[in-house]
Amino acid sequence: MFETAELGRAVTKEQYAAREPSLRTELLDLQTKLREHGKFPLIVLINGVDGAGKGETVNLLHEWMDPRHLQATAFGAPTDEERARPPFWRYWRALPPRGKTGIFFGNWYTAPIVGRAEKTMSRGRFFQAIERIRLFESGLVDDGALIVKLWFHLSKEQQQAAYDDLRSDKRTRWRVTDADLERHERYERYRKVSADVVEETSTASAPWTVIEAADRRYRELAVGETLVQALAGRLAAPTPSTSPAATTAKTTPRSPPRITGKNVLDTVDLSARVDKDEYERVLPKLQQTFHKAVDALREDNGAVVVVFEGWDAAGKGGAVRRLTEALDARDYRVIPIAAPTDEERAQHYLWRFWRHLPAAGKVAIYDRSWYGRVLVERVEGFCPESAWRRAYGEINEYEEELSEAGVVVIKLWLHVDADEQMRRFKERENTPHKRFKITEEDWRNREKWPAYERAVHEMVERTSTLHAPWHLVSANDKLHARVDVLRHAIERLKARHRQH
Amino acid sequence: MFETAELGRAVTKEQYAAREPSLRTELLDLQTKLREHGKFPLIVLINGVDGAGKGETVNLLHEWMDPRHLQATAFGAPTDEERARPPFWRYWRALPPRGKTGIFFGNWYTAPIVGRAEKTMSRGRFFQAIERIRLFESGLVDDGALIVKLWFHLSKEQQQAAYDDLRSDKRTRWRVTDADLERHERYERYRKVSADVVEETSTASAPWTVIEAADRRYRELAVGETLVQALAGRLAAPTPSTSPAATTAKTTPRSPPRITGKNVLDTVDLSARVDKDEYERVLPKLQQTFHKAVDALREDNGAVVVVFEGWDAAGKGGAVRRLTEALDARDYRVIPIAAPTDEERAQHYLWRFWRHLPAAGKVAIYDRSWYGRVLVERVEGFCPESAWRRAYGEINEYEEELSEAGVVVIKLWLHVDADEQMRRFKERENTPHKRFKITEEDWRNREKWPAYERAVHEMVERTSTLHAPWHLVSANDKLHARVDVLRHAIERLKARHRQH
Repeated sequence: MFETAELGRAVTKEQYAAREPSLRTELLDLQTKLREHGKFPLIVLINGVDGAGKGETVNLLHEWMDPRHLQATAFGAPTDEERARPPFWRYWRALPPRGKTGIFFGNWYTAPIVGRAEKTMSRGRFFQAIERIRLFESGLVDDGALIVKLWFHLSKEQQQAAYDDLRSDKRTRWRVTDADLERHERYERYRKVSADVVEETSTASAPWTVIEAADRRYRELAVGETLVQALAGRLAAPTPSTSPAATTAKTTPRSPPRITGKNVLDTVDLSARVDKDEYERVLPKLQQTFHKAVDALREDNGAVVVVFEGWDAAGKGGAVRRLTEALDARDYRVIPIAAPTDEERAQHYLWRFWRHLPAAGKVAIYDRSWYGRVLVERVEGFCPESAWRRAYGEINEYEEELSEAGVVVIKLWLHVDADEQMRRFKERENTPHKRFKITEEDWRNREKWPAYERAVHEMVERTSTLHAPWHLVSANDKLHARVDVLRHAIERLKARHRQH
Repeated sequence: MFETAELGRAVTKEQYAAREPSLRTELLDLQTKLREHGKFPLIVLINGVDGAGKGETVNLLHEWMDPRHLQATAFGAPTDEERARPPFWRYWRALPPRGKTGIFFGNWYTAPIVGRAEKTMSRGRFFQAIERIRLFESGLVDDGALIVKLWFHLSKEQQQAAYDDLRSDKRTRWRVTDADLERHERYERYRKVSADVVEETSTASAPWTVIEAADRRYRELAVGETLVQALAGRLAAPTPSTSPAATTAKTTPRSPPRITGKNVLDTVDLSARVDKDEYERVLPKLQQTFHKAVDALREDNGAVVVVFEGWDAAGKGGAVRRLTEALDARDYRVIPIAAPTDEERAQHYLWRFWRHLPAAGKVAIYDRSWYGRVLVERVEGFCPESAWRRAYGEINEYEEELSEAGVVVIKLWLHVDADEQMRRFKERENTPHKRFKITEEDWRNREKWPAYERAVHEMVERTSTLHAPWHLVSANDKLHARVDVLRHAIERLKARHRQH
């Protein structure tokens, strides 16, 4: 794989001087266009052999490009805030917004490569990690991101020579650590693993460019040319905000859903009732059990995400409070999902959900959620069909990552029928301290009931997964809904506990 | 101090039922006005005796108010990301934006009270902590925030009774921990320290309200009434975005600066030169020394903040690169200060600088900085005079907090004269890859040279402190400027090292 990067390519001082100024100008010009265009971020990954000049390249790009619109991030050992969340949380929070450039070195490729070469990671987990990377990158590309992946290669002899060179100069001696020299001994192992990784992750949408890195001038021009070519190509593309279908092949379901005459919501028995006496008898017990189940999970270093979706006025707020009453106010957070801020709008739509992800030991209760993408955004046409269709796979992947990191994902749809909703709307309008809950929008949404029904059906069909199933709550009777929510939450927490 | 909160006040079920619905409506209505008004945040602190119902009150406020515009935060032991930054970093990052409500329990009062009562904090550090709190709160109030501080009081007997009560019910038994019972033994000590704290921090701009907490119904109504009164008063005030002068008394300098005929910039010898040969000889050595000094600081768990200010085209970019070349790209971040985002605009102007504060062991280089408040914002009239005048004190306090947390703050003003600036502007216009650096705005700024001179003079006069002095760099000669920046940075790092 890397043989073509051991050809001894070099650029003379004169050749370099002849190209460098115009290359810089082109790159700057493209960066300005990227910013003005503002429709996608540029993500540059710098990976490869140690001693090949990755750090110097970051410095170089700060010099060649406008550093005000560029941010470089290196990831070392995870902090405890990072360890308390799924592994990709730290990458999500460092992503550049549209129009800007993010340079990542010491990135999501580091752990699998080192883990496999040092044999601290099993083959199974390694391939799982590679698959996760592929999904992560294709999700970003689907959202419009341009990902340029640069792999800097040196042969074993060249690495040795580079280290000797760095060590012979006082100014650069510190760049070569003992760990570097130790890893050099295992060069062949790293090479083999790296070849695997580069091959497995060179997708159509985010291919690697392998750069022969021994000659500084050649390397610098190669980096510049690669970036210019990628940016120019992307900016010239006719529809830059949608990506080629090929990139989504892995994440979206292959066929449209089979729509039978019956909607999944029709299966909910809306006559279910809990009378006041039973409610008052059973609620405290359930809350106590819920509290204990959360405590047990916390001892396992787990966390809980509860997603509340449902018709307007289905009683989400009341059900949320029956959960929070059972918890210490220090341990939970209710996260209402409103319109995104401008920082959020400049990112992938899942970014803001990653951003507010709770740490291990906490309970996060979402009052509406990422499912807005396949509900309100679908029904109101706020995003193109291709985007909400893609979202099913992205959401499943997201929830799987949470689940793997020890987060129990509990998803509830609170179901009422249209008559009950009307009764509640009127009651809200007649109760002063409830009036704020009812808006023009609620009345408008009501008119789109059938469209929402179809969207809910497809959402449940596509995103009710083994690790994060949907639970439909019969909510025409509020007391029944609250009891049912608690019962289901307890069941899910206990099921998870049994697995461990 | 707390005797007036041991009067046995209670509210009957009937009294409660008579007031609660209208109180909720008023509170909700005021919260809506706050949001629509959008000019200030509401910050509610909930402190006081354990077992007095602080957590329950947080739950209650989630029920009474619109939880979509309210966020409660509890702070436990700091995470390692928090420990790697000054103590107040975590409070800054949790502040609510204008129009929203933030509820804080387990807040900035916890550590001093516990520390003093448990005798793990000296008297000196205790009073320093109290002073810091006073400055923090008055800074927020100056920026428009409404801070409501609720202190829940119970007598020792009442605390005992509350614990007995909680422990007798299965549902609430978990709320009383062994640590709570231990602390109860030291009730008198906590009471004394708390009285001190409440007295010392009951300022005109952010007074405490002590609430007798034994009777749940009384407590709830008292909380509601206090919030309604504070919000209604504030929303009715004629100029809600500026605060009474009294609150700023502690943070702003007392008298206007003495302006002599001579500007501080006149003291800079602009004829200073470094010739090319000397530059090439001396630069690598300085970079090496700089690198080592940063390493030594890192071993001390310190961090570096370098602030670059200066005339347009004074050579900030080139000087920045001479620093970064000497560092590992993993260890530094160049932070360009552009226009704030909408999330940033909805906060105190220092919020965004707190937000991007580097962790211990890192070097953050600011290309322009928080000094924008007293430079461009002053000169262009982007903020009222009262705001930029107040900023001197706020900035000194900010930098002192950094300095105390082990951050070396290096502040550089790169000085050129108007002729040299003109020469560089023209050069930039004639060099393709430099053209992006020169904008209409640069030409406009140039016309305001005298106003900027006055602003720089006052900035240096007011913010050149012992822990964070300004250094004026003679920059008509770029090589001299770069060498001088490195020399000064090294000197500051070594001075700091000697102190430890």
